[in-house]
This record gives sequence, C-alpha cells and structure tokens, in this order.
Amino acid sequence: VARRTDDLDELVRRVRTGDARAVGRLLSLVENDSWQLRDIAVALAPFSGAAHVVGLTGPPGVGKSTLTGALITVLRERGQRIGVLAVDPTSPVSGGALLGDRIRMEQHTTDTNVFVRSLATRGQLGGLAAAVPQAVRVLDAAGCDVVVVETVGVGQAELQIAALADTAVLVLAPGLGDGVQAAKAGIAEIVDVLVVNKDDRDGAAQVARDLRAAQSLTRVDERRWRAPIVRTTATTGAGVTAVADAIAQHHDWLASGEGLAQRRLARAAGEIEAIALVQLRARLAAGTTPDLLDAAARRVQTGETDPYSAAADLLDTAFGG
Amino acid sequence: VARRTDDLDELVRRVRTGDARAVGRLLSLVENDSWQLRDIAVALAPFSGAAHVVGLTGPPGVGKSTLTGALITVLRERGQRIGVLAVDPTSPVSGGALLGDRIRMEQHTTDTNVFVRSLATRGQLGGLAAAVPQAVRVLDAAGCDVVVVETVGVGQAELQIAALADTAVLVLAPGLGDGVQAAKAGIAEIVDVLVVNKDDRDGAAQVARDLRAAQSLTRVDERRWRAPIVRTTATTGAGVTAVADAIAQHHDWLASGEGLAQRRLARAAGEIEAIALVQLRARLAAGTTPDLLDAAARRVQTGETDPYSAAADLLDTAFGG
Repeated sequence: VARRTDDLDELVRRVRTGDARAVGRLLSLVENDSWQLRDIAVALAPFSGAAHVVGLTGPPGVGKSTLTGALITVLRERGQRIGVLAVDPTSPVSGGALLGDRIRMEQHTTDTNVFVRSLATRGQLGGLAAAVPQAVRVLDAAGCDVVVVETVGVGQAELQIAALADTAVLVLAPGLGDGVQAAKAGIAEIVDVLVVNKDDRDGAAQVARDLRAAQSLTRVDERRWRAPIVRTTATTGAGVTAVADAIAQHHDWLASGEGLAQRRLARAAGEIEAIALVQLRARLAAGTTPDLLDAAARRVQTGETDPYSAAADLLDTAFGG
Repeated sequence: VARRTDDLDELVRRVRTGDARAVGRLLSLVENDSWQLRDIAVALAPFSGAAHVVGLTGPPGVGKSTLTGALITVLRERGQRIGVLAVDPTSPVSGGALLGDRIRMEQHTTDTNVFVRSLATRGQLGGLAAAVPQAVRVLDAAGCDVVVVETVGVGQAELQIAALADTAVLVLAPGLGDGVQAAKAGIAEIVDVLVVNKDDRDGAAQVARDLRAAQSLTRVDERRWRAPIVRTTATTGAGVTAVADAIAQHHDWLASGEGLAQRRLARAAGEIEAIALVQLRARLAAGTTPDLLDAAARRVQTGETDPYSAAADLLDTAFGG
C-alpha cells in the first residue's frame, strides 16, 4: 500500500510551527479514525512528551467549561501555550457537540496560543480512549505547554480518560446530590487536584468538608501526593490562580521522582490496549457474509451455544486460530 | 478441568423457586467474574427470555432511585415480580456502592417478590457490559416479570447498557443544565419512554417542551414507536402509574411485531462482543513475564515502535498468529 507520508510530514512540520489550520486538520484525521493513524503516530513521536497533560472531569453542571476558560486566562498570563480537548459525552448515535461549552470558551478563539477542540465519540466502546492520546500528541507537537482534556460525567469511560492524564482534576459543586456522592467514592485513588466550584453558593463549604473527610479515610504514605482541595468561583475567576498553582505543583512533584515516567508508561499501556480493542472490533466486523457476530448472536438466541463459547469461537475465527 | 456443574444445577433449581439467598449467591458469582460464568450461562439458558428488561438511565440527581422505588410499588400492585440491578457508576478503583440509592429502595427489602441488587464495575472497560446481561438472566430465571437495569449518567458506557434493554427509559428533571442538553441529543434514536421527574419544580414544563421539540426534529415513520413523555413526581408517586403503563405498552408494541426478537438479537450480539473483549484482555494479561502489555508500553515510550504496531503485534501474539 502506497502511503501519503510526504503529505503527513508536511502537515506535522506545519503543526510544529503552531499553524492552527494544520492542527485542526491533523485533529480531524485523528477524530475520523483515518487509515493514516499509524503513520500519524510515527510522525508525531519525536515531537511529543513535553506537554503537561491535565484531565479535568466532573458531573454535568458544575461549571467545568467556565473553569477551563478561566484557567486558560491564568495560564496565558504566565506565557503558556494551551490546548483544550473537550471530549463529548453525547449519544454514541447522534454524536453532536455541546454548543454551550464551545461558546463559553469563545473569548479565547482569537488567541493564536490557545487551541480548543471538541472530540466526539464514534459509538465505539474504547474508540475514544484510543483517539484521545493521539489528539493530545497533536497539541503537544504544536508546542502546547499544557493540554487540558475535559470530560463530562463520573462514569467508567470518563474516569478512564481522566486517569490517562499526568494530573487528574475533579470539579464538583454544591447542590448536585448523587453526582457528588458517586464522585467522592473514587477521589482518593485517582484524583490529584480537587476543585469545589460555585463557591459563592450555599453548601460549598460542606462539599469541601465532605471531600476532606473522604480523603482522611485513605491512608497516604509519606511519599504520596495528597490532593489539595481548591475552592473557586469560575465565573469571577476567584480561586483559579490557586488551581493553576496546584496543577503546576503536582507536575513538579511528579517530575521530581518516578511519578511522571510511571504515569506515562501507564498511559502508553492504556492506549495500546484501547487500540488493540478497536483493531479486534475491526477484524470481527470484516468477517464473511453473513456477519460473524450476527450469526453467533442467532446461535445463542436459538440455544445452540452459549455467549461465552460464542465469544471464544469468534476470537479464534478472527485470528485464524 | 473438573466442573462443579452439580452445585450449579442445584443453585439454578433454587433460583427458579425464587429463593432470595440462591439468587444473591448466583449474582455474586456473576459479579465476581467466576470461572463458572460459561456454565452459569448454559444452566440458565433454558429458563430465560420471559422477563421484560427495562433500562432506566439519566444524569445524577434526577431521582432515578426514587422513581424505581415508586415503580416497584405500582408493579407489585399489579401482581408482578420485580428485579432491580443498580449498575454502580463509582470509580473503577474503589467500586463502592451508592448507599443512598439502596436506602431509598429499602421499603421493598422485606418483599419476597422484589430483588434489588447493586452491580459494581470491576475497572474493566466492557466488563460490566458482559456481566449485566448475565445478571439479568439470573433474575429472569428467578421468575421476575420485569427486570429494571438502572444506570447513572449520560456517558457512553451508560447509554450502551440502556440500549441492551427491551425498553429504554430516560429520566430527566428541571435545573440540570448540561446534563439535560447532552441527554437530549441522543433521545430520538434510542429512548422508548421519556420521564420528566420533579414535576413539582419550576422548569419541568419547559423540559417536557424541549424534549417534544427535540423529538419533532426526527422523522418517525408510521411503524416506528414514538416515545411518550411522562411527567412524574416520584416522591409522591404522581405520574408513576403512567410510566408503568407506557413501559407495558412499549413491550406489547415490540411483541406484536419483529421488534422484541430484533432487540434481543442485538442484545445477544452486544453480549458476545463484550465477552470477546473481556476474553481478549484475559489472554493479553496471561502473557509471559515480563507482561506483554507492559513491555509493549516500554517499547512505545522509548520510540522503538508506535502504539498501532504495538497493538497489532499484541493481538497476533495473544492468538498465536
């Protein structure tokens, strides 16, 4: 197969100069699952690893996008170049973007040192987990000092994406009930910076106290990082400098030991695994007529076989075993 | 390998009498990814297919558990046996249960015709998608007329689980901002019954109007089901009978045509695919020392290879290709 590697080299060269159109085009190739994905990874490899990757997640309605916008302002004042990937939580079927979130970040759209992009899911479990690290690599190569990956929700997929970051930030707010409960259960293990946004509202102090209490239940040995709890009002910018400081401190702490290398190794493993699952799906879908999976489903329905045996047969068939 | 199929046959026999302890034990085997999963599937196969599987999802804080509790009351009055699987959205690491949700359903815990169970994630992408259909089969064999699978969130994983149901119910409420926006984008395609809960609050009528408007944008041909929009106040029980009616009507509509068979075929396909992914992970993890995936991650980190080639190599190695 002839590869258009010349095009790609030129595109990557332009991305490295910070050319916004080239960055946009390369991100589109990544998002649309281009057949060039492998070549893109090869072309970008020498130019990645410098950016600080920050995962920012939380339930709907806590003000993540407003906080991201305020954080961009602070980081720009510090002379940093920023990339934002807003990972879209909408239906796997419709795959639309959250217009509201985009609008809230619009104040930065004319700044050539800020790249903001929504990444939509493509209805594939694992598909997004494979695309996000590659998209991060594009922004990294474009010279971003910080890349923020923003996900909505406290579900399995969202936490998995947050865990791929160097620094994982969880944003909560008062008055969200179950969402906060659910999020709290996981904070001790995987979150590096905790933000209680909407600090001007009733209940914010209580959310911070609850988080501190949840934290105290987890034993933290002396070398381990204890996530700071930062209270913000993103709409006014109050507290956002402290968030930027906490993120920078966590990066320095990681870089001072083996932490950064370990996280990035884990990220590479997660990426390879996600890609392997996508490749497996592709092999299953490329079966003969009638579709292998559909035929297996019919055999399970008629009681001819059970789903576990059907799955094992399917894997063996897909790999010519 | 010697199989303890005698134990399993006895357990399934007791499950079929509605023995709550046996149901609990079999669900634990499913949740803990027992080596007997395949045998459990084989043992349950003859006794499943009767239950109406209802997926119930929505953003945190809309009152899903209160609604489920109220729905149980209505269905019990109609003489039905009910199973509820509360799929836990907490961290893949801690895997704790949502105590609050359990408490809200406690009024039914002494009723021998109601089975309520939380299923925790085990940190495996796809793991839950493989376990849920099997857990549904346990409650189906226990004689449940309706099995409600309750998930929290509007993320990819949650919608995938909802789509496995015969009837997918989406619960929204006023005052949730982004969550409702995100959910609305997907409703037309995959939701069969729409519930606007907290109808006693400001903005409920507007949420219902927005949903109707979103629906009207989708062309619905004459044979296709148009999701009814039901307004409820779950805390008082208002509107919950209408939800039960809508769910029953959707089931009858499905059963009157090819709909039910088609959905169940899709569910079987989804289950097989999820199991195949879990089996793939197991094969990858069972590699030699040093762990295959870890070694691949190191090669990607050093620039020796790219993640796409590493993933392809990994698949070939796992299947002895």
